[in-house]
Amino acid sequence: MDPTHVQPLSIAAGVITVSSSRNESNDTSGALINELLAADGIPLRYYTIVPDRIDAIRGAVITALESCNCVVLSGGTGLTHDDCTIEAVTPLLEKKIDGFGELFRMKSYDEIGTASMLSRAIAGITGGKVIFCIPGSTKAVRLAVGSLILPEIRHILTHANK
Amino acid sequence: MDPTHVQPLSIAAGVITVSSSRNESNDTSGALINELLAADGIPLRYYTIVPDRIDAIRGAVITALESCNCVVLSGGTGLTHDDCTIEAVTPLLEKKIDGFGELFRMKSYDEIGTASMLSRAIAGITGGKVIFCIPGSTKAVRLAVGSLILPEIRHILTHANK
Amino acid sequence: MDPTHVQPLSIAAGVITVSSSRNESNDTSGALINELLAADGIPLRYYTIVPDRIDAIRGAVITALESCNCVVLSGGTGLTHDDCTIEAVTPLLEKKIDGFGELFRMKSYDEIGTASMLSRAIAGITGGKVIFCIPGSTKAVRLAVGSLILPEIRHILTHANK
Amino acid sequence: MDPTHVQPLSIAAGVITVSSSRNESNDTSGALINELLAADGIPLRYYTIVPDRIDAIRGAVITALESCNCVVLSGGTGLTHDDCTIEAVTPLLEKKIDGFGELFRMKSYDEIGTASMLSRAIAGITGGKVIFCIPGSTKAVRLAVGSLILPEIRHILTHANK
Amino acid sequence: MDPTHVQPLSIAAGVITVSSSRNESNDTSGALINELLAADGIPLRYYTIVPDRIDAIRGAVITALESCNCVVLSGGTGLTHDDCTIEAVTPLLEKKIDGFGELFRMKSYDEIGTASMLSRAIAGITGGKVIFCIPGSTKAVRLAVGSLILPEIRHILTHANK
Amino acid sequence: MDPTHVQPLSIAAGVITVSSSRNESNDTSGALINELLAADGIPLRYYTIVPDRIDAIRGAVITALESCNCVVLSGGTGLTHDDCTIEAVTPLLEKKIDGFGELFRMKSYDEIGTASMLSRAIAGITGGKVIFCIPGSTKAVRLAVGSLILPEIRHILTHANK
Repeated sequence: MDPTHVQPLSIAAGVITVSSSRNESNDTSGALINELLAADGIPLRYYTIVPDRIDAIRGAVITALESCNCVVLSGGTGLTHDDCTIEAVTPLLEKKIDGFGELFRMKSYDEIGTASMLSRAIAGITGGKVIFCIPGSTKAVRLAVGSLILPEIRHILTHANK
Repeated sequence: MDPTHVQPLSIAAGVITVSSSRNESNDTSGALINELLAADGIPLRYYTIVPDRIDAIRGAVITALESCNCVVLSGGTGLTHDDCTIEAVTPLLEKKIDGFGELFRMKSYDEIGTASMLSRAIAGITGGKVIFCIPGSTKAVRLAVGSLILPEIRHILTHANK
Repeated sequence: MDPTHVQPLSIAAGVITVSSSRNESNDTSGALINELLAADGIPLRYYTIVPDRIDAIRGAVITALESCNCVVLSGGTGLTHDDCTIEAVTPLLEKKIDGFGELFRMKSYDEIGTASMLSRAIAGITGGKVIFCIPGSTKAVRLAVGSLILPEIRHILTHANK
Repeated sequence: MDPTHVQPLSIAAGVITVSSSRNESNDTSGALINELLAADGIPLRYYTIVPDRIDAIRGAVITALESCNCVVLSGGTGLTHDDCTIEAVTPLLEKKIDGFGELFRMKSYDEIGTASMLSRAIAGITGGKVIFCIPGSTKAVRLAVGSLILPEIRHILTHANK
Repeated sequence: MDPTHVQPLSIAAGVITVSSSRNESNDTSGALINELLAADGIPLRYYTIVPDRIDAIRGAVITALESCNCVVLSGGTGLTHDDCTIEAVTPLLEKKIDGFGELFRMKSYDEIGTASMLSRAIAGITGGKVIFCIPGSTKAVRLAVGSLILPEIRHILTHANK
Repeated sequence: MDPTHVQPLSIAAGVITVSSSRNESNDTSGALINELLAADGIPLRYYTIVPDRIDAIRGAVITALESCNCVVLSGGTGLTHDDCTIEAVTPLLEKKIDGFGELFRMKSYDEIGTASMLSRAIAGITGGKVIFCIPGSTKAVRLAVGSLILPEIRHILTHANK
């Protein structure tokens, strides 16, 4: 059960920014995710920006899963009419990790108070790989990637591949 | 994204008490919700008491949504055989706000300890409007409306109408 | 509503260990659950060990429900390929108690940090009886049974039978 | 089990035309449904035309159910982007009558061939009342109401109220 | 793919009559199912009568699956308030055989006309075993068992165990 | 509503053979689908063979949808343990076309009798495109493509893009 006793795990990350207005030059949250992962030694294998459309998001996730075992989507997790990242990704998950969204909002509550409830962040497992859906602000990225994903990614992938 | 920059938002509240025993003269939780909303400048457009029956609850919600963009139901969110508010409202929601129930129970835990787990409080968005289902005790109403709904209602409705 | 005012409630426990490797002689978590329940005066009516298979788990739960009104399953709640306790039990629940899993992970976070998110612990009501699914480690058992289930089991069953 | 042995059943019909372009003066399918029901002695208690919007459809159904035990919706059951009658009504049903849609399409196949597959007609029970969703063409209305609904409505309602 | 080329298949049947009023002496549909199966050389391993309650039905199915790979439930598949066989069995199925219910109703239509739509008969696979839910009348039993189940049971079980 | 009055529709087909044993040289059903579509003037834009794995099937469908508006999968629609085409495709559909599977089995019944019930063939719409899942035998392909898909594909796509 102790992930430190298993073989060093090979992690390859995919980063998908969900936004109908951003492009590569101003995708600050995508850039921050890449930076945080790289600083932890996790290579980037796939990166794209897709608009808030279920088919576009789902297509990017499926493509990312071909070469990556850790896919992070940022953006489209809120309550606006366009937000559909949760709707696009949920049907693709075999096992939902309810605790990820709960813990993200619990820690987010410490930073921004009751506004934490507006995020519908989720995570889950499919085919031995893990997908995270987090908000698109750099503050949210720093919290989700820095305080939750990086500390547990090896643990999660080790379990998901047992 | 900053709701303080948008147009002043028009809010109209509907309050539905779910109870098979209360009437208007002893509906203390309904009265308290009205009072708390009014103190925050939110006008009441619809108020009714319905028994613990799925069709009655659903009918009241649909009627409330015709004139209100913020509907608060109290009662029927627990674990007794009759409790069916969650069952009545869930199919009407387009996007569930998981964080509302989580945060309500987290704060409720500080007040009443592990008994907080008995509440199945939920919230969600439908057609640009928001519905909250909270327990029927005045203590729960004070917590849910005072500490969670009022601080975030403008934020939620602004997002839901983007 | 106050469970202390109602008739003394009769509780009968069923304990199911979900594990493809344990047997009765080394089932430490099953033994600990029995011990904690007995110390609180709750008699054990059913005990078995089943492998990580949906049909085996479901069969044991259905059999336990014939003689018990409080069924505790430990093991199979994580993210490995074999883990399927949540998948086996969820379709049998009439009302899910979302707050149980949330509170378990919130308190587990205080003990083990962000690794708390790896547990998919759930609870729910069916036919006036309650089912808990908790992780298989003795640390998790102590937290779930000692700090959450025992303090609330009478409260939950009283409500579930109203 | 034989419905001819029970008390004469009181039936009150609600008719909802789902269309974003029709009005009362050109609602031929709504008029035909009313005419067919009246010829069989079933009084009309509710009639409205609503656009292809989930909230509008659902609101009309809930309102109709307050005074009617047989609600017929026509229109919005196809495959266009706007068609959402099935999506609006399905979550309101306690028991789906799969055989209604199957039989409608089987008989429709005899009339129009393989194009019968384009209809997603459904029916179901809620709170002892029955809801039918049928296509908006007069040919479909004649088939559904004349050959299926009228012959079985007393049978269905008798069972649904046992 | 040709089931005639595989090993002779061992079939063991379980028969569950769902009825709140029948007993063994007047369970004509249960007796008829047994008789039809026996005439085809299929031994009966489990037989019981349970009332129209989800927990009772589900318990009988789980027990039957321990010793049988072909379980036939009769009764409780209609539209009355008590009918809950479909609700009890559906969550236990891994793969639903939509064609069974469709074909039963299509052939039933030839016998009883449009009243065929009142049956919600279903079938499905779980753990390499098959479950059929059929109406409780002897006419329905004769149609379902004689014309559909017996001709295909070996075919279905051969596929389900590949 | 009459599809013959609309603009000539541009159709591009994707063909996915689901099989863990076939390759391009012996994929007779894939070849037959291509041949039947070509004879009707529908160009092939995507063709692949994938094993019976949910992730592989889903990945192929998502890729096909990037260049095709009519995707036909053959194989993996039966009741064996490996068959998972239905499980892979269902969550990707916005609107299910129940009538396709019903009609396929009804016509299949005329050819092969009660064995028709073993096919779980489905179809549905997503993003204005249509997906069909049919059995992998050449007899089934001929029936599904020749008698159902080709006669209705223009009709379905015209509606799905209204």
